Amino acid sequence: MTDNSSRRDFLKVSAVAGVAMSLGASGEQAHARRGKRLPYGANAKRLETVRIGFVGIGGMGGAHFRNLLRIPGAEIRAICDIKESKIKRALNWVAKAGKPTPEVYDRGETDFERMCERDDLDLVFNATPWQFHVPICLAAMKNGKHAATEVPAALTRKDSWKLVDMAEKTGLYCVMMENCCYCRPELMVLNMVRQGVLGEVMHAECGYMHDLRGVKFSRGGEGLWRRDFATKIKGNFYPTHGLGPVAQCMNINRGDCFDYLVSMSTPSRGLQDYASRLKPDDPRRNEKYIQGDVNSSLIKTKKGYTIVLQHDCNLPRPYSRINIVQGTKGIFQGYPDRVFIEGRSPGHKWEEADKYYPEFEHPLWTKHGPTGKGFGHGSMDYIEDYRLIEALRTETLPDMDVYDAASWSCIVEMSQISLENKSRPVDFPDFTRGKWKTNKPLGIIGA
Amino acid sequence: MTDNSSRRDFLKVSAVAGVAMSLGASGEQAHARRGKRLPYGANAKRLETVRIGFVGIGGMGGAHFRNLLRIPGAEIRAICDIKESKIKRALNWVAKAGKPTPEVYDRGETDFERMCERDDLDLVFNATPWQFHVPICLAAMKNGKHAATEVPAALTRKDSWKLVDMAEKTGLYCVMMENCCYCRPELMVLNMVRQGVLGEVMHAECGYMHDLRGVKFSRGGEGLWRRDFATKIKGNFYPTHGLGPVAQCMNINRGDCFDYLVSMSTPSRGLQDYASRLKPDDPRRNEKYIQGDVNSSLIKTKKGYTIVLQHDCNLPRPYSRINIVQGTKGIFQGYPDRVFIEGRSPGHKWEEADKYYPEFEHPLWTKHGPTGKGFGHGSMDYIEDYRLIEALRTETLPDMDVYDAASWSCIVEMSQISLENKSRPVDFPDFTRGKWKTNKPLGIIGA
Repeated sequence: MTDNSSRRDFLKVSAVAGVAMSLGASGEQAHARRGKRLPYGANAKRLETVRIGFVGIGGMGGAHFRNLLRIPGAEIRAICDIKESKIKRALNWVAKAGKPTPEVYDRGETDFERMCERDDLDLVFNATPWQFHVPICLAAMKNGKHAATEVPAALTRKDSWKLVDMAEKTGLYCVMMENCCYCRPELMVLNMVRQGVLGEVMHAECGYMHDLRGVKFSRGGEGLWRRDFATKIKGNFYPTHGLGPVAQCMNINRGDCFDYLVSMSTPSRGLQDYASRLKPDDPRRNEKYIQGDVNSSLIKTKKGYTIVLQHDCNLPRPYSRINIVQGTKGIFQGYPDRVFIEGRSPGHKWEEADKYYPEFEHPLWTKHGPTGKGFGHGSMDYIEDYRLIEALRTETLPDMDVYDAASWSCIVEMSQISLENKSRPVDFPDFTRGKWKTNKPLGIIGA
Repeated sequence: MTDNSSRRDFLKVSAVAGVAMSLGASGEQAHARRGKRLPYGANAKRLETVRIGFVGIGGMGGAHFRNLLRIPGAEIRAICDIKESKIKRALNWVAKAGKPTPEVYDRGETDFERMCERDDLDLVFNATPWQFHVPICLAAMKNGKHAATEVPAALTRKDSWKLVDMAEKTGLYCVMMENCCYCRPELMVLNMVRQGVLGEVMHAECGYMHDLRGVKFSRGGEGLWRRDFATKIKGNFYPTHGLGPVAQCMNINRGDCFDYLVSMSTPSRGLQDYASRLKPDDPRRNEKYIQGDVNSSLIKTKKGYTIVLQHDCNLPRPYSRINIVQGTKGIFQGYPDRVFIEGRSPGHKWEEADKYYPEFEHPLWTKHGPTGKGFGHGSMDYIEDYRLIEALRTETLPDMDVYDAASWSCIVEMSQISLENKSRPVDFPDFTRGKWKTNKPLGIIGA
């Protein structure tokens, strides 16, 4: 049995049955409202060394893994993957770094459960296919470990609630690793917003526009599983890359809260067109994709501000996350990065964002940008991992919490419900249970 | 009585009472469905000379007026304005051009009616404040003249239907002069779409993002009336500039049709902030604006394609109409103008649009671009006016028809209804009464 077919079987059997979207239910009713709840992270203790179990050491997992090997205070005690080649590669990295050999968990797709039962781990970090994120995070917290997961943390509101409930039941952290929150321009914008340079933030635009046809049809890596979601999910199944940074600028869950969303998709053409160019006997030619090529959503916040969110990964186009943050005094727009500030920029003219780095470079980038170079997506993956370990070692709240993970991720389901219902509004759950009204905004993190 | 106060009085008395939006009614029920209907333009005759009555010779009117003075076959027979200074200026332009002096209609705001009753006019062209567009077009057609109007043609679905009904009753043209359809990049995109370079057009984005605070608070011109709409209309009251060109690329009313729209606005801050900086005794400080600063709408077409449409004119920001046209084979994006074509552009990288002009420059621009330079918004206003006169002189359909005017304009009302109802979908009227299914797409116009 090839890796490919075993992965695909899993998708058919386990994920679709267990983790697939229950589109009718909002999840609000289903999640456990009763039972003891703790303040988020109440059981987090200051850790000298963060002992880590790592699940899924593929493309993105490998990047995190190598970062963790060189972040002070991080210690990888256990690793878990279904592919021998990935395990070997990881052990090789460990050996080269001169670190102790971690224990290996390679007995199939649920072996992470056995790993989570160890008593010498503080954190379970996973970078697995999307359907594993929730089960692994739940297993980690249930067994007393903090959880960190790649994006999206969950695919439905119900599963998002499960993460919130488990985090509040255990008092542990559940962090979605949204690396784009640590990208250089995004960090500068956050810094500018915190300093009031853009005024009252009224509107933002963001998205994930990335021609992934080659990746989705590759014979390895994400090609083994990512394309399959396009046969099952119509909506925006990858909302967090663009959304995370602007949600931080807009104080989502910390002074404001997503209220409702409307969503609309184009027909599905890109993947079908691509498949039609494969060899005549390629079985992928028979796959039927339902995901609209371009998905556009509008999000309203409780305070009335707006966000345009897009997903566009199946058509030929250059990369963009849009990255517009617009306030009453100025605006930042990405791709290319540019700034306009009233009374400072020349009349009606953009300035190159580069001009503003000397004044508004984010302190995290000043400190870690040079160190992280060459380690995954510029330095942002390194800074992201560094910040997580730093939070655990200093007993401070990680920059992103389980409420962020839940509210940024549940759009996967919500966008689909809206677009299947003539773009009617779909309400966000308030995962903070009203705490967004009193939670303090994220500061200039790391400063 | 100053010009200012007389205009403002009119707005209060006439416009709001008579032309204001009836948000509850769709207009579908209200418009006259009975009565004889003619094919659009059935009574258009080939004209050697197009005899024109011109209403509203202010900023934009002055640009059209001067274009018409030098377009072959156009003859201005009558002019109408409420301001003596504008009449004088126009007569001066006429004299300088060595043309016969037109008759003057200056007996107040409804004197256009008297002008429309003349029996020596073929076309009544108006560039007046928005609330006059429908009454003037109706008076023109009722009196046997073709009508041309500045944008938006109407502010409600009901009024849009009135234009359609009158055009079909009389067999005359009613053309909304959307100059952006003749802008150089927009024309090149249309040419590329017609040649199939972008593949099947799936998605477009457009808008009117223009910091007009200075204009809206000026003591003359549009400052006398435009700001007032922001105290009465919440939605996107200026939708056509960005939308017109992409609607042409997407065959709206000619193979496809707008189906429904959802809309969302930010709070209203920009104009209030601006007013608060005025002198303490300025009465404009007491105006209350209700228009959301950034309005974002999603439009679905009958064939399932999507459009993002925005309006953003009250905050400090550089100009943009966005201008994205995305197909299965490539994408054009404006501001700055760039192109990506699969198999031609380098992998995942934009190319500057300028590179494509030698191959895809629109023939209208090749022919008229140099002539029109320096006459309003580059050459696009000139080409726009030229094309209208050319159509009337050659007995061909103008590039934009009354169905375009109606469907592009009625978004003013529809966006407001949606945003006041939690962004719920609002159905577009099918102003073509099903003819969009058989109407042929606009070709490479003028080629």
